[in-house]
Parts: sequence; structure tokens; C-alpha cells
Amino acid sequence: MPQLHWEDFTPGRIFEHGPRRLPRDEMIAFAAEFDPQPMHLDEAAAQQSMLGGLAASGWYACCILMRMIVDAFVGNSASMGAPGVDEVRWLLPIRPDDELTLRATVLETRASKSRIDMGFVRFEFELFNASGERVMILITSLMLARRERAAS
Amino acid sequence: MPQLHWEDFTPGRIFEHGPRRLPRDEMIAFAAEFDPQPMHLDEAAAQQSMLGGLAASGWYACCILMRMIVDAFVGNSASMGAPGVDEVRWLLPIRPDDELTLRATVLETRASKSRIDMGFVRFEFELFNASGERVMILITSLMLARRERAAS
Repeated sequence: MPQLHWEDFTPGRIFEHGPRRLPRDEMIAFAAEFDPQPMHLDEAAAQQSMLGGLAASGWYACCILMRMIVDAFVGNSASMGAPGVDEVRWLLPIRPDDELTLRATVLETRASKSRIDMGFVRFEFELFNASGERVMILITSLMLARRERAAS
Repeated sequence: MPQLHWEDFTPGRIFEHGPRRLPRDEMIAFAAEFDPQPMHLDEAAAQQSMLGGLAASGWYACCILMRMIVDAFVGNSASMGAPGVDEVRWLLPIRPDDELTLRATVLETRASKSRIDMGFVRFEFELFNASGERVMILITSLMLARRERAAS
């Protein structure tokens, strides 16, 4: 049974996870399947791009972030998914074999008006590279079951 | 050489692509790697969830959308990537073996103030299922090289 319900996500609460390494071959295989642009596939082409060298697809960073939040707390929560994503900013290139660390901060919470068994938790998710630089932020709300309702 | 530059993306221009089928095994394999939550992995658990049956991870939908826009026009453009994502809404569950169609609409464009060789193109991307229902929207700006600067 999941341990974390909507009531547990109080504003200011922080979850951390990682580091997680992004192997070069996995980063390139992802780009080949989902985002086959030269700056994500080819070192020489990437050197000529704004990224200044081979860098992960931003979507790969999103997917790694999702997996890290599942491992950090979502997998142990009464998660009901999410209605979308409010904002993503890719701040710095993510390089092959870099190691990323996640920080998830609860910004605010609110009960659902239409469903008494759930509530929304708005998060800021941040990814940092091995040098401690912030490489990405993602802001959105997750839906979580409420404890009282789940127990009733 | 890419055919499409920033100047080619005039407001109201539409690009379409698909249909593209999402095989059940690929949908589940993606979830197992990046978004291992019961509603994306297990039919019985998914039946009990808000999604009412097995459904794709929203991130899988984002990645498929990215690949479809590369195949539709980004792969034939002077793409310089994107600074982030402005908004994603997952409107309806995407089911195993569904077939998705993409419509990309240019909302507005603007030249970069800091880099005279590029400009921004703001898009609304929509995905439709085989029944013609809109299952997802994504709004964001892409960066593209300008033709005059590229030629000089």
C-alpha cells in the first residue's frame, strides 16, 4: 500500500534523489528514436550547434526526471497521474555521462472541487548536473488520492 | 541542406503528419523504463484508475509527438532546438495500438533580439486519435535559423 497521500505534501516539503548517470549510448539511442536531430546524435554536428557539443534531447531529460520522481516518492504514493505540464525550461546542455540530481519542492496544494477523493500538489522539479549547475526546471501539478477518502 | 528556415513559418501555416500507430509492447516498455506507474503497466490496475484502462504515459505521448514533428518538418528545417515547453495538456487517455495524427499550427513568430541569425516560432501541436478525438495539446516555441543570415 502506498505510504504518501495528498495530505503529506505540505508546502515547502522537499524530496531529493540521485545522482543518476546518463550513459552516452542510452542518451543517443533515445534521440535516435524520439528526437533525431544532429545536435543530439552526432558530435561534429553538435559542435557547430548552439549547444557547443553533444547534448541530451530535452525530452530525454524530462523522461529521466519522471523516472527519478517515481523512484524518489511517486512510486510510494497514491499517485493518480497529472493533467499536463505547466512549464519546462532547459537551462544548460546535459552532456553524455553526466550525473543528475533531482530536487522536488512542494509549492502549494489544493483539494479537488469535483472529486472529493483527490487533491492537486503543485511542484517545482529541478535537475542539477555533477557540477551543481541547475540544468532544467519543470513546474506542474500532480494528482494524489486523499488519505481519509482512501481509508473510508 | 534544410529547406525550411524561420521566414517560412508564417502564422496560420499548418503541418500535418501520421497516422502513427503506438504498439502496446512499445508503450508498456517505455513506461517500464521512464514512468513505471500501475496505470501505464498493468491492465487490471489501470481499470481501477481514473484512466479506466491501460493508457500511455503522458511522456510517451510527448516523445511520439516530438518524433512526429521531426518527421513532419523539423528534420527538413534549420532547427536550433527549443528553450523549453510552455504548456502540455493530456486531454484523453491514449490507448494501446491507437493511431495518432499530428497537426502543428504556427501561432506567431518573432526575430531574436540577441541573435540576428535566428528567430522563434510559437506552435500549437495537437494529437488526435483514430476516432478524431483530440487527446493532447502542446504549446511551445522552436528556434530556427534565418535564411538571409544562413546564406551570408
